[in-house]
Amino acid sequence: MPRIRELGIYEGQLPAGPLNGITDVPGVAVGHYTLHEGEGEWTGHGPFRTGVTLILPHEGNLYEEKVTAVTHTINGFGKVYGFEQVRELGTLETPIALTGTLNVPRVADALMTLAIEQNPYIGLGWAASGRKGYASVNPLVGETSDGFLSDMQARPIGLAEVRAALADASTGPVAEGVVGAGTGTSCYGWKGGIGTASRKLPRRWGGFTVGALVQSNFGAPQELTICGVPVGRVLRPSTYKPRPEDGSIMIVLATDAPLDTRQLGRLCRRAAFGLARTGSTCHGGSGDFVIAFSTTNRIPDRPETLAVQKEAFYEQPVMSQFSLAVIESVEEAIYNSLLMAHTVVGRDGNMRVGLPADEVVEVVGDSVTRLLN
Amino acid sequence: MPRIRELGIYEGQLPAGPLNGITDVPGVAVGHYTLHEGEGEWTGHGPFRTGVTLILPHEGNLYEEKVTAVTHTINGFGKVYGFEQVRELGTLETPIALTGTLNVPRVADALMTLAIEQNPYIGLGWAASGRKGYASVNPLVGETSDGFLSDMQARPIGLAEVRAALADASTGPVAEGVVGAGTGTSCYGWKGGIGTASRKLPRRWGGFTVGALVQSNFGAPQELTICGVPVGRVLRPSTYKPRPEDGSIMIVLATDAPLDTRQLGRLCRRAAFGLARTGSTCHGGSGDFVIAFSTTNRIPDRPETLAVQKEAFYEQPVMSQFSLAVIESVEEAIYNSLLMAHTVVGRDGNMRVGLPADEVVEVVGDSVTRLLN
Amino acid sequence: MPRIRELGIYEGQLPAGPLNGITDVPGVAVGHYTLHEGEGEWTGHGPFRTGVTLILPHEGNLYEEKVTAVTHTINGFGKVYGFEQVRELGTLETPIALTGTLNVPRVADALMTLAIEQNPYIGLGWAASGRKGYASVNPLVGETSDGFLSDMQARPIGLAEVRAALADASTGPVAEGVVGAGTGTSCYGWKGGIGTASRKLPRRWGGFTVGALVQSNFGAPQELTICGVPVGRVLRPSTYKPRPEDGSIMIVLATDAPLDTRQLGRLCRRAAFGLARTGSTCHGGSGDFVIAFSTTNRIPDRPETLAVQKEAFYEQPVMSQFSLAVIESVEEAIYNSLLMAHTVVGRDGNMRVGLPADEVVEVVGDSVTRLLN
Amino acid sequence: MPRIRELGIYEGQLPAGPLNGITDVPGVAVGHYTLHEGEGEWTGHGPFRTGVTLILPHEGNLYEEKVTAVTHTINGFGKVYGFEQVRELGTLETPIALTGTLNVPRVADALMTLAIEQNPYIGLGWAASGRKGYASVNPLVGETSDGFLSDMQARPIGLAEVRAALADASTGPVAEGVVGAGTGTSCYGWKGGIGTASRKLPRRWGGFTVGALVQSNFGAPQELTICGVPVGRVLRPSTYKPRPEDGSIMIVLATDAPLDTRQLGRLCRRAAFGLARTGSTCHGGSGDFVIAFSTTNRIPDRPETLAVQKEAFYEQPVMSQFSLAVIESVEEAIYNSLLMAHTVVGRDGNMRVGLPADEVVEVVGDSVTRLLN
Repeated sequence: MPRIRELGIYEGQLPAGPLNGITDVPGVAVGHYTLHEGEGEWTGHGPFRTGVTLILPHEGNLYEEKVTAVTHTINGFGKVYGFEQVRELGTLETPIALTGTLNVPRVADALMTLAIEQNPYIGLGWAASGRKGYASVNPLVGETSDGFLSDMQARPIGLAEVRAALADASTGPVAEGVVGAGTGTSCYGWKGGIGTASRKLPRRWGGFTVGALVQSNFGAPQELTICGVPVGRVLRPSTYKPRPEDGSIMIVLATDAPLDTRQLGRLCRRAAFGLARTGSTCHGGSGDFVIAFSTTNRIPDRPETLAVQKEAFYEQPVMSQFSLAVIESVEEAIYNSLLMAHTVVGRDGNMRVGLPADEVVEVVGDSVTRLLN
Repeated sequence: MPRIRELGIYEGQLPAGPLNGITDVPGVAVGHYTLHEGEGEWTGHGPFRTGVTLILPHEGNLYEEKVTAVTHTINGFGKVYGFEQVRELGTLETPIALTGTLNVPRVADALMTLAIEQNPYIGLGWAASGRKGYASVNPLVGETSDGFLSDMQARPIGLAEVRAALADASTGPVAEGVVGAGTGTSCYGWKGGIGTASRKLPRRWGGFTVGALVQSNFGAPQELTICGVPVGRVLRPSTYKPRPEDGSIMIVLATDAPLDTRQLGRLCRRAAFGLARTGSTCHGGSGDFVIAFSTTNRIPDRPETLAVQKEAFYEQPVMSQFSLAVIESVEEAIYNSLLMAHTVVGRDGNMRVGLPADEVVEVVGDSVTRLLN
Repeated sequence: MPRIRELGIYEGQLPAGPLNGITDVPGVAVGHYTLHEGEGEWTGHGPFRTGVTLILPHEGNLYEEKVTAVTHTINGFGKVYGFEQVRELGTLETPIALTGTLNVPRVADALMTLAIEQNPYIGLGWAASGRKGYASVNPLVGETSDGFLSDMQARPIGLAEVRAALADASTGPVAEGVVGAGTGTSCYGWKGGIGTASRKLPRRWGGFTVGALVQSNFGAPQELTICGVPVGRVLRPSTYKPRPEDGSIMIVLATDAPLDTRQLGRLCRRAAFGLARTGSTCHGGSGDFVIAFSTTNRIPDRPETLAVQKEAFYEQPVMSQFSLAVIESVEEAIYNSLLMAHTVVGRDGNMRVGLPADEVVEVVGDSVTRLLN
Repeated sequence: MPRIRELGIYEGQLPAGPLNGITDVPGVAVGHYTLHEGEGEWTGHGPFRTGVTLILPHEGNLYEEKVTAVTHTINGFGKVYGFEQVRELGTLETPIALTGTLNVPRVADALMTLAIEQNPYIGLGWAASGRKGYASVNPLVGETSDGFLSDMQARPIGLAEVRAALADASTGPVAEGVVGAGTGTSCYGWKGGIGTASRKLPRRWGGFTVGALVQSNFGAPQELTICGVPVGRVLRPSTYKPRPEDGSIMIVLATDAPLDTRQLGRLCRRAAFGLARTGSTCHGGSGDFVIAFSTTNRIPDRPETLAVQKEAFYEQPVMSQFSLAVIESVEEAIYNSLLMAHTVVGRDGNMRVGLPADEVVEVVGDSVTRLLN
């Protein structure tokens, strides 16, 4: 399975980082747990084509050393967890988890357990620990629906599965396609999944990295557009059944630029432009959410002083560069989520075909080459 | 335990409904499950002083016949569930559940189970049922922290407890004080809990009912104000220990006026004025949220036509009356949550004293009487 | 000057209305005043390449019979007027005016004068007129900067010019390109201006019309994308000077569907997807705003009853169709704003070249033809 | 005319600054222009009881050295100018002006003129000046309606009047009551106007100052509450005529704490709690807006580097103190706006009586004294 870069049909205006993934942002780690279990008819407990993906801003204790974060809703038909507190405080204090829609509460509960294990005063507060501070924890969980391929009702992702994803977490290359939270998703009628990409700003613009990771699960076949070419007008998955529920996308953005919440919010609002490049028409039933965080703008749980000297960033002179970095990363991450996904047969024989890279090259490649020559 | 009305010290500008509670809005039902278990030291599984409260907009199948709803965040330090989809679609499709902070995921998961039991196509979609429509469900869950009196870490509220609350649901008088989601909460340093109140608009303003239900868990003793009198300056709970986590309040508003989401949003934004009347200074660590719904503005899950004739409401001429109804209902519901709560001793001997009605009367009553005579 | 449809290179998924413009929405009228005055060096009072464009939801007294309206901000680097009240009340009570950035206050002042002339009790209230009601008026004015071609400091658009635009208003075909508020704008380094387009939903989806009108003034040459083809990679305006201020776009959406404010808000949030299709990367300095209104959801200034029977609309089953209608209308309106604009030389000899239609056809046309054959 | 402090009936929990006004925040200046002209019947050009008030964050060139600022809307029935750009960029680049409703465009236009005089490249950009940067300017103007006492239609406040207010600006004590933008306003049926107050945080909480300035123009007589006492239940203005338009309030908050936009937003959202303390029920027709800025968090128009070392502030441990400072400042500023306002007779003999301090003392004073003794 090739990533889009390997096909020779795509090129961004800004250079990618060395891994061309969200883990190009120093310290960011990603871990997956993939559940592929059972075949055939729905049994009431499977078959399962689902999973969970964790994104960790740094390798320390996230509750003790929070990072600045924001959320943004493009179309809010979704069941995410933890957005309200992030909006108010601008901080992320657990890993970000992505999963299938109905798994969200069980995954949020699991993140609570993990946070408590690491910080046993959570939920007890000063009475038990003599500790000052805010004794609760706000997990951040996103989702898209994998119900076409997987038994959603059974909600099979819980503490053990989240632990496994955490154990898998690495700062190296991110596994893409049919993995973790992308195991059962569909995109433009093809098999969707996890995809990632990154951009590096030129040194004179600060040299910062912006990375995106997506869980792609949206769109109708005829909409798919790659490198501006309406691929979906000529390539169609042979077995496509329209889904009434329309699907969704989760987009996670990471950067090492010392951005505050207002600035991160501006990044988030650009993600829709990357999404649109791939052909999305933002269906009414799509839960399209963006989460962004800065790894270098950190907030201690119990600051020892009220104020510290920090790097403050004037974004306006380079905002258009950040825009471009976000848009290109999101666009490319979606392409990767499609191209890296193989065909999956799920519950009740439902099938999603992997987007065939060679046919994409045939449709797109020539078009771009001819234009620029 | 008397409600504030029975003390003869409080009078609103607008008349209350017959029950002076959220169940004055026709069809609205409330059910509680109360967990009071264990005594003494924290064991890792108790003692528990917690519970869950359900508010049901009508007695039908809420998923099939949704009601128009909105949410509003006064201070977002909280871990609520389901707000994003309500913002986008303006619909409520499960009961509203209130509980202790760390119970939220388990309660949300339980609401999913109940919705699936009633609507087995949820999570399966058309593939299994031949049904058109959106095959997921968005539980709405609010919370405040009861960690001072209860073992929050153990998260003891799940499916069985939510079922019990549902079985308890009634359209009659609402149990207040130390019950359901109010079992372990604290308010202005006293025992807080569940409180409710309602207002009826004059016939020339439409004759609609507005009801409020609160889960009170906020404030410092010196702030408590009743009927404008700074009661907290003279009455203090004998055993008060300051809580660093500051507490929170959940406010649920119901009305039978056929309001749309924009109009319900205007109601929500008035709730803070009622909260302020009781002395709240909106602490930084308080998760103060409002949920509002209209029982008469309903949306079928699978509408048979794109449009129907409905009552559309021009709110502007009566908006100030709705404001007053919201503000007074919230204010009075908070008073009731305090006055109806008895003293509770919880985990590790932590104690919250019930606000003594007779002492309140002594401080407040005379003051108001003298002014108006 | 051909519109994009006439070039044979563009085709939408949904059919356009008969005029393929915002005036396909019954009752909607558009009027322009164009100020092209002076040549050569900046004098302190010119040269001027600016104007004003009015969009009228219906031909009646807009203050007496308001329409449901909302606003949406994609990137808020702009100086629009009137957004706050539209957000709260969801009503439009004057024509929408578009103009150059620094003209906004004078145009808002002019709209006040016109509203007062038509409704002389405004600003006087009951004391002078015995009238009940809200005696102020909220003009809605959008803008983009035409400072590259025109003397913005002099702010030459006021009451006389707004009157002239009103006198020009017609429900027929909309003049596009270098006209009204588009007289001095730039888009992707070429001459921008006013553009419009419309879509008609199939009868089974209600048969409603969605129309868009844009004032285009954004983007860098290399970004221009037409029908998915990165035209800006091969076609460049010969005289392009980069503008540090980056530009902006105003997007006005109209529909005859009886949508409420929440539903109109969902339409607005899709406009960015149409913008992205033309290559926009949402520059940091761009003021990108959307205004949407429904011509059939009207609100009297002084309703005689609190409620009326109205058509209420269930948008969810057709939301994806509305999305597509908005996205395609915005995309095509932007193309029209470019193609219908001729070359303009403005102050200090600054020049913007009109996008040459034949060269666009050469670059784009073949590419699409080959793909689909 | 005494301020509330001088009456001996009011005391806050936090100490006031030396001036007990917004100018206690170092560098903040306030200037008024008051227009009291004509008597008797409305002539079509008067009588006038109106004006303009300017709040300047510092004495430098505000366009060159912007301050961090945010806005917040409590009830958006109002015609403010400049909010969108402040939301996006978080910067204030002109003085804040307050005036009567229909004057807003002319005052915004005047602020543009002043900004251009000081920064002649505005509106010309690089073409004329060789300068890099964003060549437009975003005035911030708030308003309430003074149409009961003043001829609003004539819109008599423009450049000359704004210049006069600027010339009047001082960092000393702020003139209150019937002055500037408060010349023609009404509050709780009495004469309203300009009021101000401040609070100083204890040194261990950073020692910062929070100041508030209000233009009060809201409320019905029976609602007025002072120090918790429902004064409006016993004191009524003899000549009160109910106003259908309900009125409004503008609240400006200043601080020298180095807060970012998210943190300033949290301050803003507390202002409603101060407003509620005075009896407000947030009428449907009230335009209630908050603007907040930090004098020490500054942003150059053309930063020389992308990032600087700055003081970053952890607000959470002291957020409740900031809350209290905002709430008390707003409450006290409203009291001062009433008590410092004398009786005014305006157009058509319309009259607003000044709230009689001695009668307030009689009603309130005893009540509080008795409680605490």
